[in-house]
Amino acid sequence: MPEIRQNIATKEWVVISTERAKRPEDFKSKKEKKVLPERSETCPFCPGNEHMTPYEVFVVNDESGSWKIRVIPNKYPAVVYEGTVEFKSEGIKRTVSGVGCAEVIIESAKHNLSLALMPEKDIEQIIKVYKERYNSAEKDKRIKMVIIFRNYGEQAGASIEHPHSQLIAIPVVPFHIRYRIEEAMRYYDETGRCVFCYMLEEELKLQERIVVETGHFVSFVPYAALAPFHMWVLPRRHTESFGDITEDEITDLAKNLKLTLSKLYYGLDNPDYNFVIRSVPVNEKGKEYYHWYITIMPRLIKTAGFEIGTGMSINSSIPEENAKFLKEIKVR
Amino acid sequence: MPEIRQNIATKEWVVISTERAKRPEDFKSKKEKKVLPERSETCPFCPGNEHMTPYEVFVVNDESGSWKIRVIPNKYPAVVYEGTVEFKSEGIKRTVSGVGCAEVIIESAKHNLSLALMPEKDIEQIIKVYKERYNSAEKDKRIKMVIIFRNYGEQAGASIEHPHSQLIAIPVVPFHIRYRIEEAMRYYDETGRCVFCYMLEEELKLQERIVVETGHFVSFVPYAALAPFHMWVLPRRHTESFGDITEDEITDLAKNLKLTLSKLYYGLDNPDYNFVIRSVPVNEKGKEYYHWYITIMPRLIKTAGFEIGTGMSINSSIPEENAKFLKEIKVR
Repeated sequence: MPEIRQNIATKEWVVISTERAKRPEDFKSKKEKKVLPERSETCPFCPGNEHMTPYEVFVVNDESGSWKIRVIPNKYPAVVYEGTVEFKSEGIKRTVSGVGCAEVIIESAKHNLSLALMPEKDIEQIIKVYKERYNSAEKDKRIKMVIIFRNYGEQAGASIEHPHSQLIAIPVVPFHIRYRIEEAMRYYDETGRCVFCYMLEEELKLQERIVVETGHFVSFVPYAALAPFHMWVLPRRHTESFGDITEDEITDLAKNLKLTLSKLYYGLDNPDYNFVIRSVPVNEKGKEYYHWYITIMPRLIKTAGFEIGTGMSINSSIPEENAKFLKEIKVR
Repeated sequence: MPEIRQNIATKEWVVISTERAKRPEDFKSKKEKKVLPERSETCPFCPGNEHMTPYEVFVVNDESGSWKIRVIPNKYPAVVYEGTVEFKSEGIKRTVSGVGCAEVIIESAKHNLSLALMPEKDIEQIIKVYKERYNSAEKDKRIKMVIIFRNYGEQAGASIEHPHSQLIAIPVVPFHIRYRIEEAMRYYDETGRCVFCYMLEEELKLQERIVVETGHFVSFVPYAALAPFHMWVLPRRHTESFGDITEDEITDLAKNLKLTLSKLYYGLDNPDYNFVIRSVPVNEKGKEYYHWYITIMPRLIKTAGFEIGTGMSINSSIPEENAKFLKEIKVR
């Protein structure tokens, strides 16, 4: 019988659809295998084409003085940097000015790399840049929420194949986030502890859905995974903000992320995915009940009317099987 | 400057991304134009292939005694009919048994039809079947929520091209729905009226985003449309449940839906879309503050990391321009 599972932290429901369930192997990406060049003449993110993008706001160079990581303002920003935050309400029209920060983090000078294929050391540097830009965006008094995310592949909404992620900082806290915080707070008030810490403790005890354990981080398929191979990468230390990640944790996160993403890459033939760093809103620091983490969402299935109508998901795979499959994937 | 707009009823935020905005014409579907046969040998929903599907639970015949509309249990159901509802909670594991109802409404015997191309009379009959199945599902004491939706085209998650929609009835009320009801209740408590009625009144006064007005229904692009050409079809009469739609309203809804979907079909070259009938949960009848409606979501863009991370949307088009474009489309 299908099971409708609920995530104890987010309260999200998902139908684990046993009647439609496929084996892990069936989710292997069917996309055309393309051999990418190390440099593309027409790619705006490739070295030599810097004039095609806005001027960088941050850069990391290698020993020879060439850039390795380059952060630029988004040329087609969702929100713009100049302006003040104004809330307006007039009849049915409610708006906030679309100001904030929209940056692109070009993760490598090489066009054909991806996080799964990079050395750990390079991923470590990328995470350091994430932290630097996160902390920088937070300082802007107009900002209420900072999101760092990665769109990998066409199904994940990426329009440029050169390895990059994005930071968007916005002047509102979306109710989706408010709701999660409220739920975490309620759990804390009832039990005196962080629901994410509790979840991690139980997952480690059960060992049914763990994918990669490293010193400071654990990646696992949540009990109520919203889609096939949906994963969370959770820090063992209770912290609500990604902005507070330590040097040691960065080194370890690079290790964990490299391994986790490589398992996806080799196990499912390089599937498209999004990842998002889910951190606390800017003005809500010092929370005992919220916990930052990374959500990895492979884009293997399409959402449809049921998802739009209910906000629930249908997962046509078994979280425990997904985790077992990934755990066993040997990374070259 | 981009505008972050909020839907006054649902409180959903959307970035109306002026810096990325495209013209309405730019959203025309680029999918391959396929001429479908009137009957397909391999299609399980075509006449003659009835043995390929479960036995029908409801049928409408034409004058000659052949079926015109056929309702069957879903062969790969998200939730199954047999079983009792059990809530379990054990550590981090929270589940409800996946029981309920999953039906497919085969809307025509013809493989190559779509709602936009059918006569109004046929759409009227389909809506009557929706109502019949909705009311039937509601009678099941295990059911808390009934969703009727249509996935049209591959981007919208349809795996079979034969015209059909689905009904899924589930034993829980998702928090996504609870949240909407709470917001509507709050508005009602503050102002003494239904926020959806107020929205409709204002939209009709402003005439900036209306697409089709008929006697009982109005279709419009919401002020905070979540995606290009996102539309709501709202009944003028305040009713919280689709199950209470009257005969007159059904006739008029067929007219409105036919016109609205035809404008999409001809204006944007037959784009993929989902529609969902958003009605009140089963045990919440008699609400003064909730209002049922249909949401139509063309699948013209991909959601990405920002949407996953914030629950907000980025709409790279201007709702007023979308509405004007569709309003001016002449339907053959």
